[in-house]
Amino acid sequence: MQFPSKLVEEAVNEISKLPGIGKKTALRLVLHLLKEEPFTTETLSEALVNLRTRIKYCKICFNISDSDTCAICSSHRRDNSIICVVENTQDVLAIENTSQYNGLYHILGGIISPINGIGPEDVNIEPLVKRLDDFKEVEEIILALSATMEGDTTAFYITKKLKRFGKKVTTIARGVPVGGELEYADEITLGRSILSRSTYDSN
Amino acid sequence: MQFPSKLVEEAVNEISKLPGIGKKTALRLVLHLLKEEPFTTETLSEALVNLRTRIKYCKICFNISDSDTCAICSSHRRDNSIICVVENTQDVLAIENTSQYNGLYHILGGIISPINGIGPEDVNIEPLVKRLDDFKEVEEIILALSATMEGDTTAFYITKKLKRFGKKVTTIARGVPVGGELEYADEITLGRSILSRSTYDSN
Repeated sequence: MQFPSKLVEEAVNEISKLPGIGKKTALRLVLHLLKEEPFTTETLSEALVNLRTRIKYCKICFNISDSDTCAICSSHRRDNSIICVVENTQDVLAIENTSQYNGLYHILGGIISPINGIGPEDVNIEPLVKRLDDFKEVEEIILALSATMEGDTTAFYITKKLKRFGKKVTTIARGVPVGGELEYADEITLGRSILSRSTYDSN
Repeated sequence: MQFPSKLVEEAVNEISKLPGIGKKTALRLVLHLLKEEPFTTETLSEALVNLRTRIKYCKICFNISDSDTCAICSSHRRDNSIICVVENTQDVLAIENTSQYNGLYHILGGIISPINGIGPEDVNIEPLVKRLDDFKEVEEIILALSATMEGDTTAFYITKKLKRFGKKVTTIARGVPVGGELEYADEITLGRSILSRSTYDSN
């Protein structure tokens, strides 16, 4: 693609480095910004630089935060006897949006994946162990990891590491999605959903 | 959607003001930038601010440019006897990508649309008239405007304005797209393509 100006080309190149944005979309965004007031572009860049330079990570759960301790960890309304272990911040947001969970979180910041060279020491598992040493009130650890080989490996590793605490370690249910039809579920999911069947509650 | 931090929220709000980007995509971009080095975000913001503050518009054709006269207008390789009138910079890029045109351009920067309150004085039609006064070598004006009511209105207005110069005014062909099947073409397009039929060249 030929660009009418070096400035446009540089901006398009930078924007198209973002995931899911190609050169055409980037150019559309650039031309949009050129149509808008300079103020719009300034506010946008400021917000991005502020975000990147001033963001902190909660020292307890490693979630994104504006301060040293995140809003969830410092809240008195949360049940601090349960810790839900997730891979990243998106997972926290997804679980928060269900309104079904009121405990704390622990963000691994990745998942054990030998193929990609990510070992147990590259994700926040040691800090989780230390957290259980420090906070004796924790009774249950929920593993909410992806239902993939890597997720299972990570879950297995964490379970072994936490064994000595004698706490309850659970994992989220795998099964046919709500609204999903049986015939479209894959065999592994369907198989797991039969193994993890629960008593039917007719009330 | 609840955000884990005010900084994230502000960045998401600013990004989601861009066309075609919603809150979810914005959040994905924000979390991507947080994973990357701070340098990435800095380069991106700088490119955007540089773009918005340093961009110029060609004083001849009103295309986006790094200098007072754009690369096309100042090129000696372009045929300066033809001017192609288009609505915006995207249209210039689209025509340049065809490699079928070697003349100059004139960017209207909009299209006459009484419904949206855009009159002839809001688009660069007067400068086009002045340009024809100044550059006597122009022989043909190609109107490459959208095949919409607004495009037709604008083309009609421009044709009337340029009448006194006695130059050749043409419009790009409307017809069935290359690769398009007749049965899927709408009646108006098909009708126009019959009216503007050309002699079949069997060579």
